[in-house]
Amino acid sequence: MRIIVDCMGGDNAPRELVRGAYAASLENSASFILVGDSAEIQRIAREDGLDLSHFDIIDASETVFMDDDPLTVIKAKSNSSMAVSLRMLAAGEGDAVVSTGNTGALFTGATLIVRKIKGIRRPAIAGLLPMECPVLLLDSGANVSVTEEYLCQFAVMGSIYMQKNFGIRSPRVGLLNNGAESCKGTPLQQNTYKMLAAMPEINFVGNVEADKVPFNACDVLVCDGFTGNILLKSMEGMGRLVKKTLKKVFYANAVTKLSALGVKKNLGAELSRLDSSELGGAPILGISKPVIKAHGSSDAKAVKNAVKQAIFYASSGTIVNIAKEIKVYVPTEGGTAN
Amino acid sequence: MRIIVDCMGGDNAPRELVRGAYAASLENSASFILVGDSAEIQRIAREDGLDLSHFDIIDASETVFMDDDPLTVIKAKSNSSMAVSLRMLAAGEGDAVVSTGNTGALFTGATLIVRKIKGIRRPAIAGLLPMECPVLLLDSGANVSVTEEYLCQFAVMGSIYMQKNFGIRSPRVGLLNNGAESCKGTPLQQNTYKMLAAMPEINFVGNVEADKVPFNACDVLVCDGFTGNILLKSMEGMGRLVKKTLKKVFYANAVTKLSALGVKKNLGAELSRLDSSELGGAPILGISKPVIKAHGSSDAKAVKNAVKQAIFYASSGTIVNIAKEIKVYVPTEGGTAN
Repeated sequence: MRIIVDCMGGDNAPRELVRGAYAASLENSASFILVGDSAEIQRIAREDGLDLSHFDIIDASETVFMDDDPLTVIKAKSNSSMAVSLRMLAAGEGDAVVSTGNTGALFTGATLIVRKIKGIRRPAIAGLLPMECPVLLLDSGANVSVTEEYLCQFAVMGSIYMQKNFGIRSPRVGLLNNGAESCKGTPLQQNTYKMLAAMPEINFVGNVEADKVPFNACDVLVCDGFTGNILLKSMEGMGRLVKKTLKKVFYANAVTKLSALGVKKNLGAELSRLDSSELGGAPILGISKPVIKAHGSSDAKAVKNAVKQAIFYASSGTIVNIAKEIKVYVPTEGGTAN
Repeated sequence: MRIIVDCMGGDNAPRELVRGAYAASLENSASFILVGDSAEIQRIAREDGLDLSHFDIIDASETVFMDDDPLTVIKAKSNSSMAVSLRMLAAGEGDAVVSTGNTGALFTGATLIVRKIKGIRRPAIAGLLPMECPVLLLDSGANVSVTEEYLCQFAVMGSIYMQKNFGIRSPRVGLLNNGAESCKGTPLQQNTYKMLAAMPEINFVGNVEADKVPFNACDVLVCDGFTGNILLKSMEGMGRLVKKTLKKVFYANAVTKLSALGVKKNLGAELSRLDSSELGGAPILGISKPVIKAHGSSDAKAVKNAVKQAIFYASSGTIVNIAKEIKVYVPTEGGTAN
């Protein structure tokens, strides 16, 4: 197993990428290809005392930045670390790519360079929400607009991913909506509800409201990428607000500081369960080879976990199964435009 | 000031409505009209030892339930407590309505019975998010689809509400979006961004991402009601998940239980600041008279706070100001269909 790590472009690149890949190499038998500013990568390794002699380091002079247009990756910056990483994957010089870079560019690059699985209309970023039980959210932000057919394919891809990677035999698929009843939402949700309910290949459990998502309502949650982004970031923001509030309470005075000592360990452990960095990155499902998007702000631990996930995903048979089972889903009536 | 309380239809109706209205009557000089099953209201008052002799109680035999179609309120259930309450408001027999009932029905009833302010295309439910600084979210769930023009009017209405009710001189208006850049979102957000940026009557601060909402990014946040529902409920769900997690940590053993004692008071106070029941209900802005929607699960305290808010709103001059300042906003190019 050869993991290609796009070392540039994230908030903490390349340092945390190098550190994370190195940490992953100690725990996994995979080999590693680091792509990016090779002088900088070597400098970081020296500073941190990391032995990269068993790593391949591929120099890529350019970086796709967070505010670059997604198409940059195949046009102006076709020599960027991201583009080089994806071309190596496409050419079979590695088995998976992990990147913390520009989400839109990675999605576009994966689609145009690595290519979709045959029959897939649109790939989706499948983020794992760190809830009571993990929930796979797709699309997590790539496709701001979707059709009923995309959502049906997301449901199939997400189900296969949760089967193959989490051992859930019949993953429960929910449709993110503003109410439980089948009539809720816009025509997109109303039509999709009917189509999902008629698909024997998935275990559709109906509409799921956003406040039910944390409490084991489903294993796979499908929605358009705009709404997925709002859900994901609302939860992140609220989590941060509560943490900030807890800190304020615990640092208020001597008594509360003493109290903090008593729960610190347990509280830390429980809150880190709700921390997305524990769960690694998000695969772009529907791409013919494994591409994992890790959070832009990933630290070494998050990168290490994303690499672990990439290894597991690449050997899980998910992609082969998606290729075998994917179908075309034609809206039953009306349907929304693309 | 005469407050009409629709006592039926919420999860805890009519008991918590009666209790909440009574509690409000002790703290405010307003008079109260309770609408609903009068025998049941009297029975609750006797049981609780509440003296309702100075309350008007109007018998309404029917209830609009949570799963009723919104149009029920003006058709099959035109004698429901909700319909009667709204007709009394329209006829000038009271100055504001507070209801915990079916949101869609209250919105429809308010629009068709009490009527919109002249020039308003669509009213919006304006929920106050209990963040570091309160954020007025409109639409909070009534209009699943909106146009650019609706969103521009929401921005004006929300600004006037925050000026008149919170004393904020120049409320910062944000557009909920999946990124900060003006190119983000669907054509709806892209077009609306341009229109909001060109309106001298508001203080537009650009796109606001969902994870920034808790941290004082804006005073007024505009979006369609579908997305507003997802934002609101994601935050509610995440808040509940964290509370559940804290309970688990604090009740783990003797040491943690002791720790809990040390922070209980402060923690309770801080978390209740993040609790929407402290903030009362959500006005339906754009309606020609004050209609306040309180949460379906409101307890007496939440009802009391919603009544307080209704009194403040009704005497704030918000509606007169909206009527004076509202305009028609024509999309600059293209624009989305209604």
